[in-house]
Amino acid sequence: MNAEIISVGSELLLGQIVNTNAQFLSRHLAEMGVNVFYQTVVGDNSDRLLSTIQKAEERADLIIFTGGLGPTRDDLTKETIAAHLGKKLVLNDEAFKGIRQYFLKIGREMTENNKKQALVLEDCLVLPNENGMAPGMFVKSKNKFYMLLPGPPKEMQPMFEKYGRPAILNVLDRQESIVSRVLRFFGIGESQLETEIEDMIMNQTNPTIAPLAGDGEVTIRLTAKHRSKETANEMIDKVEKEILNRVGEYFYGYGQTTIAAELVQKLKQQNKTIACAESLTGGLFQSMITAVAGASAVLKGGIVCYTNEAKEHLVDVSKKTLDTFGAVSEQCAKELAENVRKKLNADIGISFTGVAGPDSLEENPPGTVWIGISEKGKESKVVLLKLAGDRNQIRNRTAKYGCHFLLRTCQ
Amino acid sequence: MNAEIISVGSELLLGQIVNTNAQFLSRHLAEMGVNVFYQTVVGDNSDRLLSTIQKAEERADLIIFTGGLGPTRDDLTKETIAAHLGKKLVLNDEAFKGIRQYFLKIGREMTENNKKQALVLEDCLVLPNENGMAPGMFVKSKNKFYMLLPGPPKEMQPMFEKYGRPAILNVLDRQESIVSRVLRFFGIGESQLETEIEDMIMNQTNPTIAPLAGDGEVTIRLTAKHRSKETANEMIDKVEKEILNRVGEYFYGYGQTTIAAELVQKLKQQNKTIACAESLTGGLFQSMITAVAGASAVLKGGIVCYTNEAKEHLVDVSKKTLDTFGAVSEQCAKELAENVRKKLNADIGISFTGVAGPDSLEENPPGTVWIGISEKGKESKVVLLKLAGDRNQIRNRTAKYGCHFLLRTCQ
Repeated sequence: MNAEIISVGSELLLGQIVNTNAQFLSRHLAEMGVNVFYQTVVGDNSDRLLSTIQKAEERADLIIFTGGLGPTRDDLTKETIAAHLGKKLVLNDEAFKGIRQYFLKIGREMTENNKKQALVLEDCLVLPNENGMAPGMFVKSKNKFYMLLPGPPKEMQPMFEKYGRPAILNVLDRQESIVSRVLRFFGIGESQLETEIEDMIMNQTNPTIAPLAGDGEVTIRLTAKHRSKETANEMIDKVEKEILNRVGEYFYGYGQTTIAAELVQKLKQQNKTIACAESLTGGLFQSMITAVAGASAVLKGGIVCYTNEAKEHLVDVSKKTLDTFGAVSEQCAKELAENVRKKLNADIGISFTGVAGPDSLEENPPGTVWIGISEKGKESKVVLLKLAGDRNQIRNRTAKYGCHFLLRTCQ
Repeated sequence: MNAEIISVGSELLLGQIVNTNAQFLSRHLAEMGVNVFYQTVVGDNSDRLLSTIQKAEERADLIIFTGGLGPTRDDLTKETIAAHLGKKLVLNDEAFKGIRQYFLKIGREMTENNKKQALVLEDCLVLPNENGMAPGMFVKSKNKFYMLLPGPPKEMQPMFEKYGRPAILNVLDRQESIVSRVLRFFGIGESQLETEIEDMIMNQTNPTIAPLAGDGEVTIRLTAKHRSKETANEMIDKVEKEILNRVGEYFYGYGQTTIAAELVQKLKQQNKTIACAESLTGGLFQSMITAVAGASAVLKGGIVCYTNEAKEHLVDVSKKTLDTFGAVSEQCAKELAENVRKKLNADIGISFTGVAGPDSLEENPPGTVWIGISEKGKESKVVLLKLAGDRNQIRNRTAKYGCHFLLRTCQ
């Protein structure tokens, strides 16, 4: 089954809002094994909407609309579709009851135009709106399916999950299961990763292998189709294994996880605590860690030692080190990591010092980064990175490299 | 002039990412007086892209593409357009130099597929990419204009603002000037702000007044049209003055600034330094400050005291305070702010303690936030907030409230 998403609303064409609806629906449809080849945004204009529908009918079996179901004059999605399909609009008692109750609840009088929201296409399956007034609709006409959903994501998303998705699955009568798995990598560029598995990408059929770069990371989505869900999973297992044989050292987790979340989980498992001294990253590393619920079990705390004064007085970096080697140095990173670990009585200390830019510092260009790691009873490690990008890309990638190295430390 | 936006990328059709590019470009085009009647998303598939281009040519004068300019095999936007327009792809020396320099800088070997990124359409205006490798292009063919932009927003947005927008304005030959100004507010909700200026919004004509909420903030975009740019600016000045008369206490800056950037600038002007003790925010406040270039002039540093142990040993909060009032208390916030200021010898100390959730802490529900501010020679102030939202919304809004209160302190 091929689907197409048509989002209706001039506010989208004026750039006033982002079309998160198209993403939400596309992700669900992909998981359901429904191909989406086009997403279109069109304004609150009946002629242009009609021509968009006609084009979509040439290439899709299922057309999903979002927006234009509201009470005002410029909401015309269902009116346009009704005229196009030759279907009447009829009052839906359930929806009308809901609208009247809503106005009772907020203590305002219902204006006449709100009644329009309770009109639905004849012969349609009504999709109840539990978070708003306008109901959704699902209707078949000449072997094509049409689903109408409201525009506000807070209404559309729960309606689709509870009523829209099951309605589509019901007509899919699927023979095959579709299984998807996302592998997440850090520390390797998209083109390098693709080069490493180029032969696999060239010869991909089932599972498909789709790399994607973003936010300093790369993901690979593996998708397999098979009658048996178990077999589809085994097919993915096999490809995953081969990929990890080649680039496994950069792999850190599956799906929607973050490298910081993986680190927090790993530290919890090993019952280890960390303490941080952040110069270059200025709190960003600890902020990533504390964004994870439950971080308090592993993060003892830390120091943002943005100035040399703070490095010396709060983390006891020796004046000699700062004078002889500078703040952007292996020695400084080492002392920061060791001292912050001891100060906070943690198992592992980690430090970040370097140059985020835009200006150079102590004759080091932006992107020069030292990360120190000190573990109780072990020799300290210090890593030098040379990162490209602007100030915030350098800061962001440095903090993620911190997670990356700590994950390796905990292997 | 009518424009159409075509975003190319299977990751959009799979719902892996949101199409913020279409919003960004639509907003800019609306401001430039260019109508956008359609946005389309199509996958990395040459045939489907071609049919989308042909449809767009029927209804638009300018077609803007985002995505598909990268190094990998599935990036095929420019190849498809070149074949369609009968234009060759030629190596752009400037872009190729940039790509080689990038790899030299990061100390990795350039894989062969990266060279592809330096190929551009013959006879095009090359739009330099100052934040990545693939350049953009602007080309005319048979009275239609085509603009090709990279997919990653961090590359596309600055490229469009610096090179794409002027190139379009240049062919528009416009008689009127269009002037836009964005006012940024924090600490007031969208609906409250809209209520305060409802009469102005109802009666808007020129300038237009467009409020927009996002990321815990509200912006108002004022746009005026006039033959004289000076007069358009004066028209905006007048409306801005009236708005700030009503909700000025929440206003913090113009355009693309951030509340942290405004704070850093204000502190610099007043030659003041700050020190921070972060419990709840776990480094996020300092990370926002250090994201601003030049933050080292105002941020002495700080302590992430996520545990009570760290509060006691690193920031000298008295055991009695922690035992009697708890960590989530006015007293604790006060001691944290005062002690961190003294420890780092700063002019102002600021502290954050509270509950980000998902769990309650010391019988306080998530969203309970204390912010302490201590100024040399003045009595300390402590503010209690009760914020709604999930863990990261609470953290984010708390850090921004920190900036908000410090900006007021520096008035």
